[in-house]
Amino acid sequence: MSGDEQDVLAANAGFYRAFAARDTSAMDALWARDWPVACVHPGWRPLFGRDEVMASWLSILGNPAAPAIAFRDATAHLGGDLAFVLCTESLPGGELIATNVFARERGGWRMVHHHAGPIAPGADDDEEPPELLN
Amino acid sequence: MSGDEQDVLAANAGFYRAFAARDTSAMDALWARDWPVACVHPGWRPLFGRDEVMASWLSILGNPAAPAIAFRDATAHLGGDLAFVLCTESLPGGELIATNVFARERGGWRMVHHHAGPIAPGADDDEEPPELLN
Repeated sequence: MSGDEQDVLAANAGFYRAFAARDTSAMDALWARDWPVACVHPGWRPLFGRDEVMASWLSILGNPAAPAIAFRDATAHLGGDLAFVLCTESLPGGELIATNVFARERGGWRMVHHHAGPIAPGADDDEEPPELLN
Repeated sequence: MSGDEQDVLAANAGFYRAFAARDTSAMDALWARDWPVACVHPGWRPLFGRDEVMASWLSILGNPAAPAIAFRDATAHLGGDLAFVLCTESLPGGELIATNVFARERGGWRMVHHHAGPIAPGADDDEEPPELLN
């Protein structure tokens, strides 16, 4: 595994560490400042720009009902100054699939996009998907 | 708008053109060959690798029940040899949000990742999201 790949996976782990700890300062620090950012929370409309995205995280992390979260099966895909990570998010109510995009900025990898959405309950390698919407 | 941005948005439009026309050859041609690829269809487990991803498209595009699809509100975000596009997908049953990632390959932009998931019915700028899962 390359050093960049390790760094991107470490940045992804840092995102979930900040999320699980409801650490708004860490969450703010790990999102890019020089790049345009976007975020799709499950079921939300897409959010664009740092102000809108960070307001959403303040709302989520400040909510006493915010669920415990963990992640697994992270894979990193790198190219130039952008990278994306896919991983499975585990929440009390089920699992989500996340696409997390990172960009190289000021010597590190910062998050520029997070998109999480549902996975079919019980979906695994041996099952057909429940519908063929897209 | 830069030439690259126009090219990325054109590649994104080409993806939906192939999808709507159920054109399996065009769909095959627009996915990257030199990059690792991944795909998250709504509710499916993540698919990795060209063979698995293309098999899913053959299944979807060959299905007589495959829905009509259109897209709108595409925005492109570029960095180096990777770019991601967010857009809204319109289907007969509702709308989805898609993150589409493209990579520069052999002189053009090829798709390396597609992640589509639901948006809350009626979600718009003035409404609160239905839940704060993530």
